[in-house]
Amino acid sequence: MIVKSTANVPAEAVTMPGAADVNMQMLLGPADDCPNFAMRKFTVAPGGHTPRHQHNYEHEVLVLRGSGRAFSPAGEKHLAPGDVVFVPANELHQFTNTGSEPFEFICLVPAHVHRPAAQPAANTAGCS
Amino acid sequence: MIVKSTANVPAEAVTMPGAADVNMQMLLGPADDCPNFAMRKFTVAPGGHTPRHQHNYEHEVLVLRGSGRAFSPAGEKHLAPGDVVFVPANELHQFTNTGSEPFEFICLVPAHVHRPAAQPAANTAGCS
Repeated sequence: MIVKSTANVPAEAVTMPGAADVNMQMLLGPADDCPNFAMRKFTVAPGGHTPRHQHNYEHEVLVLRGSGRAFSPAGEKHLAPGDVVFVPANELHQFTNTGSEPFEFICLVPAHVHRPAAQPAANTAGCS
Repeated sequence: MIVKSTANVPAEAVTMPGAADVNMQMLLGPADDCPNFAMRKFTVAPGGHTPRHQHNYEHEVLVLRGSGRAFSPAGEKHLAPGDVVFVPANELHQFTNTGSEPFEFICLVPAHVHRPAAQPAANTAGCS
């Protein structure tokens, strides 16, 4: 069993094109030998957003803090703490901070997304 | 894209032997066509606990609220909001509320755990 505090997990800036003011923490992933899915925490600063993009794997999201907006081709939806989001594979999507405090959420993906050489490099740090 | 509030997801009592005062909400799972993993929220009342058991799939846990304890054969660890836990497949484990308020956490499992007939019935509602 592995137990760790989110506060002790290093944050890295998401540098994927289209991301603005987004940090990611790998809470549980390849380094923990998670076999099937990886749990990442994203923090989007006020005014920031994740890329508007799509990819061949799904997201499962839980909003922890702040106020945001989820874009999909069907429209935009407001997000608040306690909301969950399922983004199917290959659907265009984007998460934007619409408030004045950090917008924080966890976003899970299949484990292969973060295994070296399993996906194109541009996909390895993007929730979202 | 599916968006829903945790507050609107029905809670069901976990009736697995060994569970005490535990409710589960299926936040994202088979009914949402999640292909690879399922996100459940567990609420353990003060004095309650999940079963002390093991199974052939892993858990990825994030503590949301309250105070708890995670048991594994290596010992017991205190859990607080923001802590994450990885329980590997086949490791004995149990989560206990050690505080005076509800102990809440999400716990993700491979999707097959909640698909009909994919696992023995006794495993279909147990984080934990």
